[in-house]
Amino acid sequence: MLEIVIIGSGNVAQHLIRAFSESGKVSVAQVFARNPDSISHLIDSSKIIADFQQLKEVPVYIIAVSDKAIAEVSQQIPFQGKIVLHTSGALAITDLDAKNTRGAFYPLQTFTKDKEVDFRKIPVGIEIEKGSFEAALKDLAFTISESVFKITSEQRKALHVAAVFVCNFVNHLYKIGEDICTKNNIPFEILQPLILETADKITQLSPSAAQTGPAKRNDTTTINTHLQFLADGNKAAIYKLLTKSIIDNG
Amino acid sequence: MLEIVIIGSGNVAQHLIRAFSESGKVSVAQVFARNPDSISHLIDSSKIIADFQQLKEVPVYIIAVSDKAIAEVSQQIPFQGKIVLHTSGALAITDLDAKNTRGAFYPLQTFTKDKEVDFRKIPVGIEIEKGSFEAALKDLAFTISESVFKITSEQRKALHVAAVFVCNFVNHLYKIGEDICTKNNIPFEILQPLILETADKITQLSPSAAQTGPAKRNDTTTINTHLQFLADGNKAAIYKLLTKSIIDNG
Repeated sequence: MLEIVIIGSGNVAQHLIRAFSESGKVSVAQVFARNPDSISHLIDSSKIIADFQQLKEVPVYIIAVSDKAIAEVSQQIPFQGKIVLHTSGALAITDLDAKNTRGAFYPLQTFTKDKEVDFRKIPVGIEIEKGSFEAALKDLAFTISESVFKITSEQRKALHVAAVFVCNFVNHLYKIGEDICTKNNIPFEILQPLILETADKITQLSPSAAQTGPAKRNDTTTINTHLQFLADGNKAAIYKLLTKSIIDNG
Repeated sequence: MLEIVIIGSGNVAQHLIRAFSESGKVSVAQVFARNPDSISHLIDSSKIIADFQQLKEVPVYIIAVSDKAIAEVSQQIPFQGKIVLHTSGALAITDLDAKNTRGAFYPLQTFTKDKEVDFRKIPVGIEIEKGSFEAALKDLAFTISESVFKITSEQRKALHVAAVFVCNFVNHLYKIGEDICTKNNIPFEILQPLILETADKITQLSPSAAQTGPAKRNDTTTINTHLQFLADGNKAAIYKLLTKSIIDNG
C-alpha cells in the first residue's frame, strides 16, 4: 500500500488524514504536528512526530500548513527525489524546495473543525512539475475524491480568488443577513431555505440567469428604501457597491 | 373549498397558482393576468381574466404584482370587506386600499421561471390588520407551506433587506466567481461543491463560526496577492470592501 506522510495538524490536514485513512488504499505512515493533541483522535500516537529528524522516508509528502510556513517546511524534509505536494490555493509549486519533485494537491472546499464533509465530493486540483508523475498523482487523488482535475499554478491562484468570492464573501453576506435578523427579532433560520435554494439554483442555471432582486430589476424605489433602512454605514456601503455591480454587469 | 383570486402573472403569481392548485384545499377561482399566455399552462383559460369588471367575488384576493402597481390594483378591486393580501417584502399592508381587510402573504424565496421549488419548504410570513382574521390567514398559508410565521410590516422590510444580502448579492458573487473561472479556462462546475457546502454549513454553524479564508485569518500576503490578480477595478473594489468588513466585524 502506498505510504504517505502528512505535515500539518490544521483543518485541511485533519480532513486529509481522515480521508486517506478511510480510503483503505493509502497508508498515512506519519503525521508531523507541532500540536499532537489536535490530531490524536485521528491517528495512532506512535505515528505523530514533532521533529523532522524522525521523519519517515516515504514516496509522497503532503504539506498542509499555513502558506507562510510552506517554503520552510519543504526545506526541512531531509530527503530528495520524493514527491512533495502542498495544499495551498495561493502558492505556486515553485515555492517548494527544488530538491524534491514539486506539486500541488488542492482540495477546493471550506473546512471547519465542527462540520463533517464527504471528501469524495470535493474536487481536488492537481499539478506536478514532472509529467511522468502525473498519473501517480492522479491515482493518489482518486483514492479520496471522485473529482480530480489538472490545474496550473496560475489557474489555481484564479480559482482561489474565485473561491474567496463564492465562499468566504458569501458567508460574510450570510453574517450580515443574520445581523439584520437579530436586530429585528427575526429568527435567522427563516432565511435558510432561501440560502439553500440560492446555492442550489446555480447547479441548474447560470448565475446570470438566476439573478433576481431589486438591482436586477433596477427598482430604484426599493433600493432607496433599503438604503434608508440600512443606517449602518458599512452594510450600506456593501449594499451600494453590489447593487451598482449587478446593474452594471448583470 | 375556500376560493381565492390571484392577481398577477409573474414568477411569484405562477408559483402561487401552482402551489394552491396542487394543495387540494384551496380553489384558485380566477387569475387576473394582463398577459394570459404566461399562465395558460397553469390554469384553465376560462378562469383567466384581464378586466377588473369580470372579477369574481371571493373571500380572499392575493395581489402578486410589482410593488409599484400594488396600491392601484388594490383600488381596482370592486368589492369591500374582503381580505386583500400582497406578496411584497418592501411594502406595508397600509399601502393597500383600506376598503378591504389588508394583509401580507410573503413567501421568502427566490423564484425563477425555469427552476421548480418545493413550496412546502418555503417560509411564508403573514400579517393582517384585524386579529380576528389571523387564524384564517394562517390556515390559508399552511395549505401550501410547512413554515408559516407572523411578521410585522417593519420586520418584513428588514427580512427583505436581509434576503437581498443572502440571495441576490450572494448570487452576484457566484457570477463574479464564474467570470473569474471563464477568464482562466476553469469550468465553473468545479466551484459547485464549495458553493453548496458554504450554504449547507450555516444550517449547522452560525455564519461567524463558519467564516474561513484570508480575511478571517488577516492573511495580508494572500489578500495583497489576490488584489494584484484582480486587475478589474470593480471586482477589486468588492474584494477590498468585503475583506475589510470581515476583518472589522468578524
